[in-house]
Amino acid sequence: MTKPCIICVAITGSVPTKADNPAVPTAIDEQVESTHAAFEAGATIAHCHVRNEDQTPSSDPERFARLMEGLKRHCPGMIIQLSTGGRSGAGRARGGMLPLRPDMASLSVGSNNFPSRVYENPPDLVDWLAAEMLAHDVKPEIEAFDLSHIVQATRMAADGRLRAPLYVQFVMGVKNAMPLDREIFDFYIRTLNRLAPDAEWCGAGIGAGQILMNEWSIAAGGHTRT
Amino acid sequence: MTKPCIICVAITGSVPTKADNPAVPTAIDEQVESTHAAFEAGATIAHCHVRNEDQTPSSDPERFARLMEGLKRHCPGMIIQLSTGGRSGAGRARGGMLPLRPDMASLSVGSNNFPSRVYENPPDLVDWLAAEMLAHDVKPEIEAFDLSHIVQATRMAADGRLRAPLYVQFVMGVKNAMPLDREIFDFYIRTLNRLAPDAEWCGAGIGAGQILMNEWSIAAGGHTRT
Ligand SMILES: [Zn+2]
Ligand SMILES: [Zn+2]
Ligand SMILES: [Zn+2]
Ligand SMILES: [Zn+2]
Repeated sequence: MTKPCIICVAITGSVPTKADNPAVPTAIDEQVESTHAAFEAGATIAHCHVRNEDQTPSSDPERFARLMEGLKRHCPGMIIQLSTGGRSGAGRARGGMLPLRPDMASLSVGSNNFPSRVYENPPDLVDWLAAEMLAHDVKPEIEAFDLSHIVQATRMAADGRLRAPLYVQFVMGVKNAMPLDREIFDFYIRTLNRLAPDAEWCGAGIGAGQILMNEWSIAAGGHTRT
Repeated sequence: MTKPCIICVAITGSVPTKADNPAVPTAIDEQVESTHAAFEAGATIAHCHVRNEDQTPSSDPERFARLMEGLKRHCPGMIIQLSTGGRSGAGRARGGMLPLRPDMASLSVGSNNFPSRVYENPPDLVDWLAAEMLAHDVKPEIEAFDLSHIVQATRMAADGRLRAPLYVQFVMGVKNAMPLDREIFDFYIRTLNRLAPDAEWCGAGIGAGQILMNEWSIAAGGHTRT
């Protein structure tokens, strides 16, 4: 029996604007229609960011609520995952939408460098976001930008800060963090399997590495992000 | 022929005070005498922090200059490595002592979580510290708190921001960063050997893991930190 592959679609990141690509959906109705098309094409999870009117990233719970409402109507049964990423807000504002009880939310459990800054996820904020997800029954997708993030997630599951089984996303291709590297990708899988045998994982390649990461992930029995 | 093992002694970290352990050398004359004893016992590299009068961490170049002067007099031939770690100062103040041209200085090339905060090494500061070390002919010891830091160092050597051969320290046992894990330790060595075959490495275990990390490192042909 073959295991189904979960395809997660990230319609709108936090950075690109219509100046970069006019097709980027930034208004909520555009995001809903774009996700609907991906849902029809077979995507199972929608990874969601919201934007302000000027296209800058936002964590506004009211915007997230409107997006969730549209997705539930147009994509019934699709898993809705909201981003708690650091580009969209500061501190606990990043988790202000968790009481909306989306199916999933992204969770970074460590810090690392990004192309031009530090992606800061201080330990007390990580613990608070994890506790909010437990309280509101939100399944985290662990965003692993480095090896220690995988290890840290397994420790948080072991001590009850996260609920097992884990769902971990390996993120590769980020400048100043982890590049796409096949031996490291394989070691990520081995390490997760060793420390959390019941975990599921998916691979996300940033920029030019996206298609290659999709191929590696599907061939290795993981899930993937487009 | 056997390869000599380099023992690096870190006499004074940035955190403990005489309230924690009355034997911690925090005044410069205490540091010089303590290093002298380690030098007599076979240590080759002195990893140095300096403190203010109240024992808080400092990056004051004048203090570093007095420490270097004492070490050169009492421990002739010992390799002097100054810390540019983030606990002792903010931003470029961390590298203000590099014009003293110590033999070596520590260099973090990525960011990660520490027990209660983010250890911030933003990309522009990393590049500035690396450039200062090139300009003043200071050999960096790369402090690798996570796997991507090893990869990043090899990329910086490949594009000329660092001078090969690299000297990399694997730091394990830091809460919220990388624990002591034998399979990960072995993978660190394999990855460094694959990406920078001419590199040397040493292992540093924090707290309770120190002795085990010494054993692993010496047995695996690396250098070590006490
Ligand atoms: Zn995202
Ligand atoms: Zn629709
Ligand atoms: Zn140090
Ligand atoms: Zn002496």
